Amino acid sequence: MTSTDAALPHLVVIGGGFAGLWATRALARAPLRITLVDRSNHHLFQPLLYQVATAGLSAPDIAAPLRHILRRQRNVEVRLGEASAIDAPGRRVTLADGSVLGFDYLLLASGATHAYFGHDEWAAHAPGLKSLDDALHLRRQLLLAFERAEACDDPAERAAWLSFAIVGGGPTGVELAGTLAEIARHTLKDEFRRIDPSSARVRLVEAGPRVLASFPEELSEKARRQLEKLGVEVSTGVPVTAIDEGGYRLGEEYVPARTVVWAAGVAASPLARSLGVPLDRAGRVPVDPDLSVPGHPHVFVAGDLAAVQRADGSPVPGVAPAAKQMGRHVAAAIRARLQRRDASAFRYRDFGNLATIGRMAAVVDLHGFKLSGLLAWWFWLAAHVFFLIGFRNRLVVLLNWAWAYWSYQRAARIILGGQGDDGPPAPRT
Amino acid sequence: MTSTDAALPHLVVIGGGFAGLWATRALARAPLRITLVDRSNHHLFQPLLYQVATAGLSAPDIAAPLRHILRRQRNVEVRLGEASAIDAPGRRVTLADGSVLGFDYLLLASGATHAYFGHDEWAAHAPGLKSLDDALHLRRQLLLAFERAEACDDPAERAAWLSFAIVGGGPTGVELAGTLAEIARHTLKDEFRRIDPSSARVRLVEAGPRVLASFPEELSEKARRQLEKLGVEVSTGVPVTAIDEGGYRLGEEYVPARTVVWAAGVAASPLARSLGVPLDRAGRVPVDPDLSVPGHPHVFVAGDLAAVQRADGSPVPGVAPAAKQMGRHVAAAIRARLQRRDASAFRYRDFGNLATIGRMAAVVDLHGFKLSGLLAWWFWLAAHVFFLIGFRNRLVVLLNWAWAYWSYQRAARIILGGQGDDGPPAPRT
Repeated sequence: MTSTDAALPHLVVIGGGFAGLWATRALARAPLRITLVDRSNHHLFQPLLYQVATAGLSAPDIAAPLRHILRRQRNVEVRLGEASAIDAPGRRVTLADGSVLGFDYLLLASGATHAYFGHDEWAAHAPGLKSLDDALHLRRQLLLAFERAEACDDPAERAAWLSFAIVGGGPTGVELAGTLAEIARHTLKDEFRRIDPSSARVRLVEAGPRVLASFPEELSEKARRQLEKLGVEVSTGVPVTAIDEGGYRLGEEYVPARTVVWAAGVAASPLARSLGVPLDRAGRVPVDPDLSVPGHPHVFVAGDLAAVQRADGSPVPGVAPAAKQMGRHVAAAIRARLQRRDASAFRYRDFGNLATIGRMAAVVDLHGFKLSGLLAWWFWLAAHVFFLIGFRNRLVVLLNWAWAYWSYQRAARIILGGQGDDGPPAPRT
Repeated sequence: MTSTDAALPHLVVIGGGFAGLWATRALARAPLRITLVDRSNHHLFQPLLYQVATAGLSAPDIAAPLRHILRRQRNVEVRLGEASAIDAPGRRVTLADGSVLGFDYLLLASGATHAYFGHDEWAAHAPGLKSLDDALHLRRQLLLAFERAEACDDPAERAAWLSFAIVGGGPTGVELAGTLAEIARHTLKDEFRRIDPSSARVRLVEAGPRVLASFPEELSEKARRQLEKLGVEVSTGVPVTAIDEGGYRLGEEYVPARTVVWAAGVAASPLARSLGVPLDRAGRVPVDPDLSVPGHPHVFVAGDLAAVQRADGSPVPGVAPAAKQMGRHVAAAIRARLQRRDASAFRYRDFGNLATIGRMAAVVDLHGFKLSGLLAWWFWLAAHVFFLIGFRNRLVVLLNWAWAYWSYQRAARIILGGQGDDGPPAPRT
């Protein structure tokens, strides 16, 4: 039962991702009552979400219950729920179930969601990847596409089921495209009798001039070559102009494809709008140097939702290490407020940039020290397994990878959610 | 691509469970074309389904893609689809998508489904456990019940969320009740701030005089005592007479409970009706001694769908070893038919009976050699892990168990399918 003291100042944290969870944990000994609100019951290791979508890992492998992580931190109460509005001057948060939480301090860390650049009608035909539910939906759709192709007698229809496009050449798009090509080429080998899965067309579509634009040009080029070696068709410099049930339009060309995946745009969670402060173009909250909201010193924003600049004016990227650093900085800022000290300014420590491409292929950029290929892949693997929360998960994830590595197999090729003959269900986003 | 010869006799197998898969594998070298039809893409290790429902295992831990299992058996084509009608004299099966498969031989092994004894309206309030989708639905409902209780301010409402009933004292009911009691008592310890999960009421309800009725009385009594030690309230001899959204009626008593699980009745798959032969009370097909359907020597039934007697007149139980034996027997009978020999009569080899109750508690009956408690649990664990298909699964399952054993934790406590504030979705059965 609760051991928190109702007389202590109350901090409400919205979002149990890297920013919210790291802030909460850093305040374990602070004289505060903390309520952590999340709409799912788990913290998600988002960098490996594409592995769940591509059937390499099970959903529970990359998630841990927030209550369990925080069970010994007695000043925290975890609340399953969705924040629907923030009243910053009145210091109140309203949840979707109608209940209201008063606060003395607020940390808004509800992350990002997909953005379709004004084409919300594309969402039904090109699901994105932000939550475990998204990943399971995508897994189902990818695996069913091969089943539909096998069951299909019409050659054009069959080709459309074997045509896959991933829109967006950032790390998620690159990871998805590389892994999907491997599945088609290796994992499904020998399993079908009417189709040849390795004839599947896997296309990575990027409107900008190169994939992995946040990396040095040299590594973008290496990534492209590694993708092509895996069998991915990389199309850069031409935007997608339409997506419908039957395919997508790239510039002037209409490409039949039953599976289009959206990895192109993210937008801040709509909750930010209720703060009543100006947002940037992507819907993020421009914050003061200590990560508090201008005019609301008791309200902080961290993670993907915060628009923060580095010393050189470039934006802090929306990656896990940045979110953790911001979370810890907010914890320090709140401790400073409690002691009536000034909070310091946030400074992003950039440890480098890494992206995986497929089995034994990755690119790593550590401040000019660049790696690609097998060595980069080992580096990537070690870093990701090391940072997974919880010993058990790390071990299982490693084992699943070792298995996939030796056998080209994927451990989670299970279609859930009924099979029906009605195609995949609508995305749940 | 296909290497099967269209001139060979065609065997259609409906169902990739133990009976259908074992028959298919036993016919690897037979001069046949085989089409295996299943509505899911995986073979399921059903004896561990309750572990997925109670968040101990991930769905992919106990399932393997049928295509992968059979990839090297070139005389088999796997078809994802649902058989909707059988025309035995015309030798044709119709699938739900409208396609028709002609056959020379048919094995019907589509298993069993839940039965509510004429109270189909209970299905919405008391989901059952037959598929992975059922298990994930149940997991979600069990985990959400504790979340709802924590968020609830009304004491009566809170008590109803913490009141669980499992209807049916067979192996599945006993396993679910024991595991759920452990979750409430141990796994969730320290995680909630407003409720005490160990105060949850877990009730196992059996209309007959004792739990595990297929075991010797002595072991039923041991199982009851082990359940009570784990904190399960065992009610025998009184039938459930009503189930609704708010609770259930046991004899005259109405018990508020937001979670009722159905583990009481199974009925044969409705497909059997289209055979046009008399079925038994549970909807199963009484078969000839060689497991063929009376009057249709080219149609066989195996597994839970077949009504088969032992030499002493008692029914062959609906367990995995019996299904595997029947599957192999049907393979032998078809080989005999192909060689114009008479098929032998099926004889069930009963190796014994085992059921687990919880962490380190089980009962084992090996023809009069009886075990209970810790030793029985180890026996149960070894037997189940040994029989899991596929090396990787076995290892992961073992590791997950070792982890749960040492830590009282459960690796898959992840609520999927959105949380909403609308309670769990309707069951998908």
